[in-house]
Amino acid sequence: MKMLKRIACCLWVLSAIFSFAQPPRTAQIESPVINADNTITFKFRAPKADSVLLSAQFLKAPQHMTKDTSGNWGITVGPVKPDLYPYNFSVDGISMADPANAYVFPNERFKASLVDVRGDVAPVYNLENIPHGTVSYRYYYSKSLGLMRPLVVYTPPGYDEESKKNYPVLYLIHGMTDTEETWFKVGKVNLILDNLIAQKKAEPMIIVMPYANPYPDLLKKDKTTRVDLLGTDIFSNEIRKEIIPHIEKLYRVKKSADQRAIAGFSLGGRQTLAAGLGHPETFSYVFSYAPAIFDRELNDNMKNIYAPADQLKKLKILWISCGKDDGLYGASKAFDNLLTQNNVNHRTLFTDGGHTWMNCRLYITETAQLLFKK
Amino acid sequence: MKMLKRIACCLWVLSAIFSFAQPPRTAQIESPVINADNTITFKFRAPKADSVLLSAQFLKAPQHMTKDTSGNWGITVGPVKPDLYPYNFSVDGISMADPANAYVFPNERFKASLVDVRGDVAPVYNLENIPHGTVSYRYYYSKSLGLMRPLVVYTPPGYDEESKKNYPVLYLIHGMTDTEETWFKVGKVNLILDNLIAQKKAEPMIIVMPYANPYPDLLKKDKTTRVDLLGTDIFSNEIRKEIIPHIEKLYRVKKSADQRAIAGFSLGGRQTLAAGLGHPETFSYVFSYAPAIFDRELNDNMKNIYAPADQLKKLKILWISCGKDDGLYGASKAFDNLLTQNNVNHRTLFTDGGHTWMNCRLYITETAQLLFKK
Repeated sequence: MKMLKRIACCLWVLSAIFSFAQPPRTAQIESPVINADNTITFKFRAPKADSVLLSAQFLKAPQHMTKDTSGNWGITVGPVKPDLYPYNFSVDGISMADPANAYVFPNERFKASLVDVRGDVAPVYNLENIPHGTVSYRYYYSKSLGLMRPLVVYTPPGYDEESKKNYPVLYLIHGMTDTEETWFKVGKVNLILDNLIAQKKAEPMIIVMPYANPYPDLLKKDKTTRVDLLGTDIFSNEIRKEIIPHIEKLYRVKKSADQRAIAGFSLGGRQTLAAGLGHPETFSYVFSYAPAIFDRELNDNMKNIYAPADQLKKLKILWISCGKDDGLYGASKAFDNLLTQNNVNHRTLFTDGGHTWMNCRLYITETAQLLFKK
Repeated sequence: MKMLKRIACCLWVLSAIFSFAQPPRTAQIESPVINADNTITFKFRAPKADSVLLSAQFLKAPQHMTKDTSGNWGITVGPVKPDLYPYNFSVDGISMADPANAYVFPNERFKASLVDVRGDVAPVYNLENIPHGTVSYRYYYSKSLGLMRPLVVYTPPGYDEESKKNYPVLYLIHGMTDTEETWFKVGKVNLILDNLIAQKKAEPMIIVMPYANPYPDLLKKDKTTRVDLLGTDIFSNEIRKEIIPHIEKLYRVKKSADQRAIAGFSLGGRQTLAAGLGHPETFSYVFSYAPAIFDRELNDNMKNIYAPADQLKKLKILWISCGKDDGLYGASKAFDNLLTQNNVNHRTLFTDGGHTWMNCRLYITETAQLLFKK
């Protein structure tokens, strides 16, 4: 980030001209700075604070920062394994994103900043000079919800230039408090697919990223709306009865179940299991990443939400992933065992790490290479 | 925002489960709250701060907030005229976005939050149940810069369903420290056009939003890159020699100058004048909103950067807008006079207010209705 200093300097001079141009700017702190050895220096200006902590997804626990004589808090941590990490500060107990960093994690609830640590090898989400797909923001009207709904759709390189080829579709669901943007902006799914397709490791496919949380907008219409975040019926209906038909009308799409996949993270992993295992006639690939499922409900889900085991055998791939440090790991393992007991063919990938988007990128990278090849 | 309390409550319960799910969350402050009379209550938790100020683009000057006994700072301001406003807090002199508000202004330098105040009449950027266009994020390789570059492209309702119709194109440029996203995320240009097109007030058109600042990426490649933010050659060349040919290859586009427009805000308004008035053979509509131009250079620009006055007469519309409280208003007025002296036909709209995105939305709403009708 050092080279940004020169441009920042120019901006200071220039912006004196634009007296009405800008809200008051952030103090001139440079944070984060990734050092040559992949340690990272974080800074935060708060001369009067008693304590500033750094929380970051490469740390096991928050770290105390120290204050210098000018009132700037700082800490250098690492070296850090190359990846794209969320982090934030806790200032006298108040969490906030890094005011010096414009790279923000889009989320409805928490405010985190992102730091992208690069190593000697370009990451799978690197922006390469290769053919790129397109990420489109669209709206559709959901009759069942009575709401305009957003959709983010990835079309692979060549989609616009072709006029006849039809593509398989992956429906990809975000986690709790994430939005339809998170798989794009943090998951980097477009760049990952662009790279895998260029390397001929993944089939060209369309990826549809809905906004799976209807409650903020439902509550705006009706304050008495009952909020049931763990319920899956609303989303299972919306995706099958509204989103899929909408996509199949708008895009050149292969329409058979063997050309349709669903995947999701966290609460989206739960929704993926409900929609995917509940409807094997609709989806042939079901990839659930760190699903928000719980031991106590697994038997009930098998009986009441998911299709009978003999129907689940039709699936081409059922996949469960979870980090071993994830609070949800135990339930994923229990579900793995229950599927084995029920003779439901499935695969698992249990990795290091927790309930993170670093793991999400790893899981989508692994599983995208399995899709639509059978 | 009150209805969000119920969902927030559910999230707190649920998220106890996801111990690794999230960076530490924002304190449970509800801010901003838009009251029934369109006053707005802002809150910020900082028990140890000595002073917290609210800066907002509906205020003439920052306002001191007051601290309650629990350490929460608060202020109620207004009533506020309905619009979408940036604001932020200054905490003991440090500017920061509102940690309780997930609606963030995307910008490379400053961090502001957004508050959307609604009145009795739906604003021109309201999300209506009408046919909607699509906003696409793309990349292209710029040979002149040696960089992959982002592009955001709006295609109007019906573009995907049609297969033969060709459309005129508006090239729309952001301001200093904004990005290719700002006209979409803050300018709401897609929703404004969707509404104007539905009301038959604007012609269906494609809108191309480039990232007009090459310096952050050039400096990453070469730290010694000379930064000349007021220089316009790099962008004028890139748009004419790379972006336009790229768009005309990818999209169904009318390719004559009378079907091509350029508009921009602030530094983008300066770039608009340089590219548009420098190349009337390329652009027939030139709309400059609060351009970053300066009295001392106007005569030189007319001689050296813009085409001779007799060629400027070919333009279908040359338009200058500025807010009367804008630090750049004087230069816009001087340029207006200079154009009149040179017998260059042009229109102006000088409005209340300053160098703001509220004015940007007003200007694009007015000028989009003039485009491609001659």
